[in-house]
Amino acid sequence: ITERNLKMFRETFLELHPTDQVEVFKEMELPLQKQLLLFLTPEEFSDIFQGLDLEDQSEVFTHIGFQYAVAMFNYMSADDVADFLLEMEVENADDILQSMDQEEANKVIELMTYAPRTAGAIMTKEFIRISVESTAAQVIEELRETAMAAETIYYLYVVDIEERLAGVVSLRDLIIAQPDQIIDDIMSTQVVSVPVNEDQEKVARLIKEYDFLAVPVIGKEGKLVGIITVDDVIDVLEEETDDDFGEFAASKGATDLNLTAFSAAKKRAPWIVLLMFFGMITANIIGRFEETLQQIVILAAFMPLIMGTAGNTGTQSLAVAVRGLATGSVEKNGVWQIVKRELGTGLMLGVVCMIVLTGIIGLFYQGNWLLAFIVGASLFLALSMAAVIGAVVPLIINRLKIDPAIASGPFITTLNDILSLLIYFSIATTMMDKII
Amino acid sequence: ITERNLKMFRETFLELHPTDQVEVFKEMELPLQKQLLLFLTPEEFSDIFQGLDLEDQSEVFTHIGFQYAVAMFNYMSADDVADFLLEMEVENADDILQSMDQEEANKVIELMTYAPRTAGAIMTKEFIRISVESTAAQVIEELRETAMAAETIYYLYVVDIEERLAGVVSLRDLIIAQPDQIIDDIMSTQVVSVPVNEDQEKVARLIKEYDFLAVPVIGKEGKLVGIITVDDVIDVLEEETDDDFGEFAASKGATDLNLTAFSAAKKRAPWIVLLMFFGMITANIIGRFEETLQQIVILAAFMPLIMGTAGNTGTQSLAVAVRGLATGSVEKNGVWQIVKRELGTGLMLGVVCMIVLTGIIGLFYQGNWLLAFIVGASLFLALSMAAVIGAVVPLIINRLKIDPAIASGPFITTLNDILSLLIYFSIATTMMDKII
Repeated sequence: ITERNLKMFRETFLELHPTDQVEVFKEMELPLQKQLLLFLTPEEFSDIFQGLDLEDQSEVFTHIGFQYAVAMFNYMSADDVADFLLEMEVENADDILQSMDQEEANKVIELMTYAPRTAGAIMTKEFIRISVESTAAQVIEELRETAMAAETIYYLYVVDIEERLAGVVSLRDLIIAQPDQIIDDIMSTQVVSVPVNEDQEKVARLIKEYDFLAVPVIGKEGKLVGIITVDDVIDVLEEETDDDFGEFAASKGATDLNLTAFSAAKKRAPWIVLLMFFGMITANIIGRFEETLQQIVILAAFMPLIMGTAGNTGTQSLAVAVRGLATGSVEKNGVWQIVKRELGTGLMLGVVCMIVLTGIIGLFYQGNWLLAFIVGASLFLALSMAAVIGAVVPLIINRLKIDPAIASGPFITTLNDILSLLIYFSIATTMMDKII
Repeated sequence: ITERNLKMFRETFLELHPTDQVEVFKEMELPLQKQLLLFLTPEEFSDIFQGLDLEDQSEVFTHIGFQYAVAMFNYMSADDVADFLLEMEVENADDILQSMDQEEANKVIELMTYAPRTAGAIMTKEFIRISVESTAAQVIEELRETAMAAETIYYLYVVDIEERLAGVVSLRDLIIAQPDQIIDDIMSTQVVSVPVNEDQEKVARLIKEYDFLAVPVIGKEGKLVGIITVDDVIDVLEEETDDDFGEFAASKGATDLNLTAFSAAKKRAPWIVLLMFFGMITANIIGRFEETLQQIVILAAFMPLIMGTAGNTGTQSLAVAVRGLATGSVEKNGVWQIVKRELGTGLMLGVVCMIVLTGIIGLFYQGNWLLAFIVGASLFLALSMAAVIGAVVPLIINRLKIDPAIASGPFITTLNDILSLLIYFSIATTMMDKII
């Protein structure tokens, strides 16, 4: 590559949107990536580095020199540096922090102390604070100098002498204001803020509900410690959705398509094997009713139908509860109302299925009305129960703050399997005792 | 209520954030709502009306006079008016549009023509367009006058004489620029835009990926027709997630917690009954193997275990495929790679389960190695197949653009049920023929 080529390449490449630069970089083979690193300054490369996921970041990190890395970290957002360093070996992280710009390093260290999945962990330190006494024109002048470093300049947070949040001015308000108006007169004092240890999902819901572009984060003694912007929040909502899905399918952390078949199997196998052991319970229950089965073998034919229908009903209720918890409508409606509704729904579904199936079996199974009655009655009871279990279990789990993975779809289905089999065979055995 | 009370109430109420006003309004009983309407001007009430969902809007609409409604619609965003009118009887909508402000009505009519779930249907017409030749100072002056009506002023779209999009200036760039710089020099000409008929989910992904606050929407001949802002996009992502969940649980459109038990049952019953009819297929299959079952009744005990394990494996693969389609990583990785990976995962899960279960049955079922072999071999085949089906079916459905609801969790589980039963009983019957 000649000097001239290099200049042209740099120009074209740096014209690209950072997101596209990241895409181009990811497509490159390692030798080319290394060459690109030589062409770009730490500042220019910092945008790309921030756009990579943690795995790729670690990979790239091994190929860049210590000095280059430190310089790059100085240009990165403190929250991205904190995320990266939290993944690294501790000694190494300390070395880097000591070599970094003092002020930047302090921000990073602070962010590293907050618990994961809280407001503190996802907030950024790059925001603009202004004082109550400035005029609109002064603030605009200040912005000209400092705007580049901030994550967003669309909300400007007004703080008092003790660094406490006093109000907020949107850039919109600032533009509309007369140049000589002072901030005190323009700012809104009704600021919605979140505490630094607030759950990240709650913050996401808040921003979504109010259509905010950002919310300020408040630390000890009401001090303004950071802000959370809408783009961080979209990622949080996405992450929570993936979690919900993972729980639903007992494949938490394994929906990533970039895993190899082996690592996907390794992540998924424990769930499948665990659930298979639960399946041994159903095998055991059926084994106990071997005598009943021996007398009416055809009973076996309807086992999957009853278990399946109860399972589907339970899954529907589960979907209602999981989404209700995620969107906050459970809190709004109250737990009892949901349980009552699901019970009602389950009873009605049970009646419908009972009538339909009793009819079909009566007609097509040579008028075997005993079988029809056993299956119909079991369906009614199993469905009513399944609807309640599907809704109640995740709500209880959520209350008890146990790992919600154990309330996932397959687990509820297994629970419903066991209970519906017990209902089915109990009814069948009782009926047979009476008749035979 | 005295005059003085009224004034105080108005002041307190109007100080609230519109989202909170909506909450307060929703909590009120009907008579109080009606009284509130009398106290607020159409402009003041328009914020509340926009925040209600369509059902509540219809309800409120019946209580407000025609003139009040028309005045209110003039103040609302054209996209919200279009959404509301699309839900109404046509004659009524025409009356309203004819009485509305001409310019506003035209915007609404235009928005009503776009297909649902496209960029056109979710975009807003309230945005700011500026000309190439203005100076930064001139634009800021313009903003002072027009900013109130726009949905966002953080991106200003630059258009040429033919209303074609020429570039974009962020308010941030504008602030940083020297007052006498002309827009042509400040603006970025590399604007990412979307066509008016683009799928809403693609737009949402784009905004998410690039951390945009808004994207411009381009109509015929490259004309700028509207913008889509990040808060609309969060709602779209949420909506798509709900759809995905609904499909997963065969309860599309029924995860809403505000439905009564009866209407929830009405929406969910068709799925449950339909799936129950599929369950009749499994009952039929088992019925055909009645002879085999009569000889080894204990075979029935492992039916649920095999079906369940295959079902869980299929559901995991389904979760991978559904999330992959939603996040666009299927497109990135290619269909074949996913099928290959899922087959690999399925084979490995199959081997693990086969070994574990063959051992357990051999040990605990009085060394019944025939049973152990039948169950183990069935598990291996059923799991390998289930993993592929779970991944392939939604991908095919997506390709064929059929209603993806038929690829939902329970349907795939039913398909896996049928196939795994066939595998199980075929192996069992063959083995017995050989031995007995």
